[in-house]
Amino acid sequence: MITKSVVKDIQSLTGKKYRDQAGLFLAEGSKLVEELLRDRPHAIKKIFALENWIEHNKIIDPAIQLTRVTTAELKRLSQLITPHEVVAVVAKFPQIPLRQGNGLTVVCCGIQDPGNFGTILRTADWFGVNQIVCSPDTVDVYNPKVVQATMGSIARLAVHFLEIEPWLKKQQLPIYAAVLDGKPLYEIARSRQGILLIGNEAKGVPASLLTTNNITGVTIPKVGGAESLNVAVATGILLSWFS
Amino acid sequence: MITKSVVKDIQSLTGKKYRDQAGLFLAEGSKLVEELLRDRPHAIKKIFALENWIEHNKIIDPAIQLTRVTTAELKRLSQLITPHEVVAVVAKFPQIPLRQGNGLTVVCCGIQDPGNFGTILRTADWFGVNQIVCSPDTVDVYNPKVVQATMGSIARLAVHFLEIEPWLKKQQLPIYAAVLDGKPLYEIARSRQGILLIGNEAKGVPASLLTTNNITGVTIPKVGGAESLNVAVATGILLSWFS
Repeated sequence: MITKSVVKDIQSLTGKKYRDQAGLFLAEGSKLVEELLRDRPHAIKKIFALENWIEHNKIIDPAIQLTRVTTAELKRLSQLITPHEVVAVVAKFPQIPLRQGNGLTVVCCGIQDPGNFGTILRTADWFGVNQIVCSPDTVDVYNPKVVQATMGSIARLAVHFLEIEPWLKKQQLPIYAAVLDGKPLYEIARSRQGILLIGNEAKGVPASLLTTNNITGVTIPKVGGAESLNVAVATGILLSWFS
Repeated sequence: MITKSVVKDIQSLTGKKYRDQAGLFLAEGSKLVEELLRDRPHAIKKIFALENWIEHNKIIDPAIQLTRVTTAELKRLSQLITPHEVVAVVAKFPQIPLRQGNGLTVVCCGIQDPGNFGTILRTADWFGVNQIVCSPDTVDVYNPKVVQATMGSIARLAVHFLEIEPWLKKQQLPIYAAVLDGKPLYEIARSRQGILLIGNEAKGVPASLLTTNNITGVTIPKVGGAESLNVAVATGILLSWFS
């Protein structure tokens, strides 16, 4: 039986303020929850699931509070139009220190759409980029729609929110910024050492960052008519080149 | 003044059945409507817009029925949470014949998410691919969320819905299918002549198509942990390679 107070607690986690206070976030859907169980088992605090899912997954960890729910109850807990078998309450991951000086880092400057941001994280994970730096005005990484769009990649990434400009000035690696009037991507030497700046959906990378030392504006050559590419698609194409 | 009957007419166009009957679809937002006015001016039948937008755009074509609306009225007409200045009723574009035998064609096999499908169309347009073939179970191209996600590219593309298998058998160009266990993308010769098959978000390209003559399964090499890439991101990476 799901009480009103349980529903209220879960719903409150759709807001950043409550997520920050509680140090918790929501994860929905079998695929996502099963990836979290595999990659971050100790982070999972509560699971609300249909009988079928429980039978199939055999959760034995006594630290996880497991509640069997009906389809109607799940609907009350879910943020999705069509709920997917299971909703979990998960502890935010501990911050690990920022790694300096090697590998690829993706920097998100003010990404606003949760679906785009989640897809960028999933794409970074595919290409083995596990460090993401975000400006403070980027959408919260624990927003339920972001978590959903990462498809589990959130469990494998270190995501840091910080002021980009002072941080960028201290970096030694080459810096690339996705812009509409830069050097054609295919003229850039491929390298898995560098920092890739991705800008806001409408405004792009802030002009103030484009004057940083050691920065190169990079453009994906256009053949047809579209004014721009979706930001997650552009990130995929850039990472595919650098990887 | 917007009557209830006008609101009802507009709302009905969110359903495929009514769009097919009326031969009309909805387009929302200044950017999208302005691109349609430029690229498909005769397709626009009605515009409902805020005073500001009307002043800025100076519509003089008497064939377009222009209605000034308040923010509150626009909200009643809009499918978006935050309406964007203008909603237009647009005539579906006339079908042009399928082009055979040259250039790149993207084939969508059962893409379900309107945002993904619209983003695929926008990406194809960026890379100068203007012919898209879709299986009948792909989401409707005139679905408002698809139209929105194309960001105007819908006006520049020829999108055909047909049974893929018999059509594919008649093609002479090399066929590539996006799969998880194919030949690494970067081993495929770059060419702007070919047919690229993109599969459903969960199920991929149907197995029945993968036995077609002249087909090569292609995979974007994975470095990290994600199980898959978003289908629109994958399409962007593939088209970037072939272009």
